[in-house]
Amino acid sequence: MKKKEELPACPVATTVQLIGSKWKLLIMRNLLVRPWRFNELQKSLDGISQKVLTESLRSMEDDGIIIRTVFPEVPPHVEYSLSEVGESMRPIIASMEAWGLDYKEKMRS
Amino acid sequence: MKKKEELPACPVATTVQLIGSKWKLLIMRNLLVRPWRFNELQKSLDGISQKVLTESLRSMEDDGIIIRTVFPEVPPHVEYSLSEVGESMRPIIASMEAWGLDYKEKMRS
Repeated sequence: MKKKEELPACPVATTVQLIGSKWKLLIMRNLLVRPWRFNELQKSLDGISQKVLTESLRSMEDDGIIIRTVFPEVPPHVEYSLSEVGESMRPIIASMEAWGLDYKEKMRS
Repeated sequence: MKKKEELPACPVATTVQLIGSKWKLLIMRNLLVRPWRFNELQKSLDGISQKVLTESLRSMEDDGIIIRTVFPEVPPHVEYSLSEVGESMRPIIASMEAWGLDYKEKMRS
């Protein structure tokens, strides 16, 4: 997690620093439903490169939002899930979903 | 505004397409308080280039989220404010603010 000193004074900017990118927001949307594997995420996020997905996941892990779990199977597999802190972001994504639904409805009429 | 056909199927992705960037989110935060001039915005958004600010504002204007008003003074000045559609995003930014406050509080303890 970020130390207090590294966070912006503005609370909106703090949140933006943690999830203010197109891909991180879409990763959050997926993980709010269930844990995902790397390959599943890459397939779901149309246009993301392996490099950007790796970097996004690593930075979200460093920020304490998501948890990376390695299952010692043969072959081993890795799953990403939300931490308690990440789970607490649900109202943000929910408000984005509600707004998006409303906007699409307006565009339809 | 975007035509219905250009919008992603997922409502979260729709919202992300319109404001899913660090700078657009921070511009929204500012405009939710009052209209802003270009130079004020640039000063407030630490590290943004003139090019990126111009492009962000233009794309938000194209998407119908913000309104650009030219005041015919000498010298003329330009103000950016929220449209009704942009104003309806207030709950999203409010939920980001609430979460950011809570996160900062946790980091402090």
